[in-house]
This record gives sequence, structure tokens and C-alpha cells, in this order.
Amino acid sequence: MSLMINGVFIKDHERVDDLQRDGLRIIQDPALFCFGMDSVLLTGFVNVKKSEAVLDLGTGTGVIPILLTAKFRDARYEGLEIRPESVDMAQRSVMLNGLGHMVTVTQGDIKHCDLLYKPSSFDVVTSNPPYMKRGSGLLNDSDPKASARHELLCNLDDVVMSASRLLKPQGRFYMVHRPHRLTDIICALRANKLEPKRLRFVVSRSGEKPCMLLTEAVRGGKPETTVLPELVIYKPDGTYTEEVLTIYNN
Amino acid sequence: MSLMINGVFIKDHERVDDLQRDGLRIIQDPALFCFGMDSVLLTGFVNVKKSEAVLDLGTGTGVIPILLTAKFRDARYEGLEIRPESVDMAQRSVMLNGLGHMVTVTQGDIKHCDLLYKPSSFDVVTSNPPYMKRGSGLLNDSDPKASARHELLCNLDDVVMSASRLLKPQGRFYMVHRPHRLTDIICALRANKLEPKRLRFVVSRSGEKPCMLLTEAVRGGKPETTVLPELVIYKPDGTYTEEVLTIYNN
Repeated sequence: MSLMINGVFIKDHERVDDLQRDGLRIIQDPALFCFGMDSVLLTGFVNVKKSEAVLDLGTGTGVIPILLTAKFRDARYEGLEIRPESVDMAQRSVMLNGLGHMVTVTQGDIKHCDLLYKPSSFDVVTSNPPYMKRGSGLLNDSDPKASARHELLCNLDDVVMSASRLLKPQGRFYMVHRPHRLTDIICALRANKLEPKRLRFVVSRSGEKPCMLLTEAVRGGKPETTVLPELVIYKPDGTYTEEVLTIYNN
Repeated sequence: MSLMINGVFIKDHERVDDLQRDGLRIIQDPALFCFGMDSVLLTGFVNVKKSEAVLDLGTGTGVIPILLTAKFRDARYEGLEIRPESVDMAQRSVMLNGLGHMVTVTQGDIKHCDLLYKPSSFDVVTSNPPYMKRGSGLLNDSDPKASARHELLCNLDDVVMSASRLLKPQGRFYMVHRPHRLTDIICALRANKLEPKRLRFVVSRSGEKPCMLLTEAVRGGKPETTVLPELVIYKPDGTYTEEVLTIYNN
């Protein structure tokens, strides 16, 4: 029994979630990796200018480009994803939202993106890559969620190197990651001529240690990093802060 | 008219400040660089174990080792300083506080510290180095305070390289610096095999962007960085937070 919405098939094991932004919806499979708050906060941190070309590396179900279309309408979005099942879901989500004129999703490997795209061809690259080093705390390699969380199919250096190749000079790379990888992140960025320009740590509650890190790096940028005020997710009463609500509803 | 306290001469242009810790006092010259809150917060961040050897690079008037003696009594402290006037004040402050058995201050250049100390001879190295790159915002090279604030006599790489040479394997390097140099700091540390292990940003008030950065790096440490909760200086009412009061009085 398959469901069909707006001419798009939804498979039995899939679900359709409301993204709470501009009526956007996304197809996800609970057995695979489902998007989290990190992707949403990254879209709140990204800035896209008029007519820019944006590439999301490891796009999964396409949540980052789909959310960005609501924030920056006059831009062209590409998503690159290695898992065929995720590419298929992302492509159907694009159709479901009537975004075929703005968003293209392609199946391919971040490590070989030069076979798919010309060097220096994007103004903006975004990524929510796997956070954990290969082997750290991983129990089961064959878990279909493993490659989204652990560096099995690509690692931080692969993502940063590809971003640097594909960005135009002065192009911006936006990434969400974990604070415990801060040194790896900063060193990989500078080694690939992507200068960290804006960093923002995300804390669950004020006074806690950060749980996420948002980074903007500029290809060929001058050395000097602005560390922004922390982004706090929850108020002391456990409800979302105004800033997080604004990001979700923007 | 010179003043004498505890057998120590205080020169006309100098003043003696109470460090508010264990009755410690320090001789300073208002025409030269006087210590600030950054040095005090660094001493709150440093950990020294029993019988360890500690070196402070660019010790100025010796405030960091002098404050550390109150916190960690069973240790041996060295201060290295290039300006003879500062060395002289630091040595007299050591005598004034009766710390001659614990603290030695030596005149010398951070860039040539291998002439003064054996490699791998310290357990801990501390530093509050000049924060500003040569040329950035500097009006007058001959200002006696300039070399404490600007990288005129040594730069970040010199300090980090010397710390790495002088530390034993697994020795700890503690530094206070400015957040806008974050990328320079992290890359210099890792390039010199000093792995950043603990980072703490300091904010004036909660919700602001950080004004200082405290770093602990370990020589030969494994890659993984803990970003600690922010250290907040002032409460909303403008008085010091409990944590800062504790650091000052510890």
C-alpha cells in the first residue's frame, strides 16, 4: 500500500514530516538517519546572496537545501549524497515541495566530487558531516545510520578538501560539527585555505559546555576569527529561546 | 626618596599593589605594563601538581608565578623576561614576598630560551603573551607598554615553539590570549605537537561575545578538545560572579 501526495510516491516504510517552515515537508525513513536540530541551526547560520550557487555535501534527505529555499529564494541549490535510498527520498521531497526549479540532488561520493562539478563553481558550500571518528564508539558498521554519524565513507578532511576545491575564491563554507573536534576542524580548514571567519558555539542551556559548533570559513580569507556569542537552545524553564524559535520559523 | 619594605627597595616611580591573595604584593611601574585580569584568570585555570617545575614565558613583573605560589605551594617556579626593568621589579617582588626559595626570575629572550634551559625540562609552561600582531593598531613602537601588547619582540609562534621545546612529554602549556587569534593559536599549538585539550572562553557578561581565551595544551597529547562552559566575569548587576571572586581569592 503506497501513498501518493502531489503526484509523489511515499513508500510504506517512509514518513512525511512537516518542516514547520513555509509549509515545507520532507520524506524520511525512520530506519535511516533522520535530520536533527543541528541541520536546522546550520540553516539559521548560513547566509546566501542573490543568484548564488549553493552545494550541500552529504545532503542525506536534502533537509538543508530544502530549508534554505524558504530563507533565500533567489538561489540555485545542489545536494550531493552517496546513499541511493537517501538520494531517492531527497529527490521526491524536492518534487513534493515543488522545488524542482531550485534544487537538484545528485548521487555521488564527496571524495570524488571533482568528477561531478567543476572546480571553483560554487559561491557557498554547506555540510553537516559525520561527527565521529572511524572506530570511536561504533558498535555496528552495517547499521544504516552509522555512515551519517561516523566517518566511514568520508572524513572531515575529505569534506573540507572538496569544499575548498568547489568554492570560488572568497566563497563561504558553512559547517555544523561537534566542539570536541574543534582542533581538527580549524586545522583542516586552514590547511585547505578555508580561513575560519565566524565561529558560534551552541549550548543546550546557558552555563553548560557547548554541544555543537557552527563555522563559517572563507576560501582565501584573511586570518582573523570572530567567536560569536553562544547560541542557547533552551531557556531555564525548558522552552526554546526566542532565537531558536526564530530560526525554526524563518 | 626611596622606600624600603622588608629590606627591598621600592623606587620612586614604582608602586606596591596588594594581590588580594595570601597577603602577596607586587611592585609595578605605572609607566610600564601593569598586569590585568587576564593573568589572574590564567592562574585560576592552571593546574600544578606536587614538585612540578613551572616556567612562565614573558613573565613581566612576575605576577603569574607569584600568584601561583599561593595556589600550589609545593612546586618550583621560573620566570623568563626580556626587559631588564621588569626582571628587576619581578626579582624584588619575589624577595618582598619571601619567595626566593620558590621563584627564580631570569633575563632572557623567549626566542633563544634553549640557551638558558635544557629541552624537556619543565612540567608546566605558562604564558600571557602579546595579543596583537605586529602593526595592528600600533601607534608608537617606542611606547614601553607596546612590546607587552604587540608582537614586537616575539610572536605567537615563538612562544608556542619555545613552550614545546621546554616541556617534558605530556607536559602542559597554559596560555591566555584573545579569541580573534583562535585559528592562529590552535594551528600553532598543533604544529608544535602541543595538542589543545581544554579551551575556555571568557565573557564579560553572559550573552556577549568572548573577550579572552584560556587554553591548556599537552605535549604529545591525543587529538580531542574539550570546550568548557564559558567563564563569566560580571553578573547582570555589574558585580563579579562567584567564580571570579573564587579565582581572585584562591
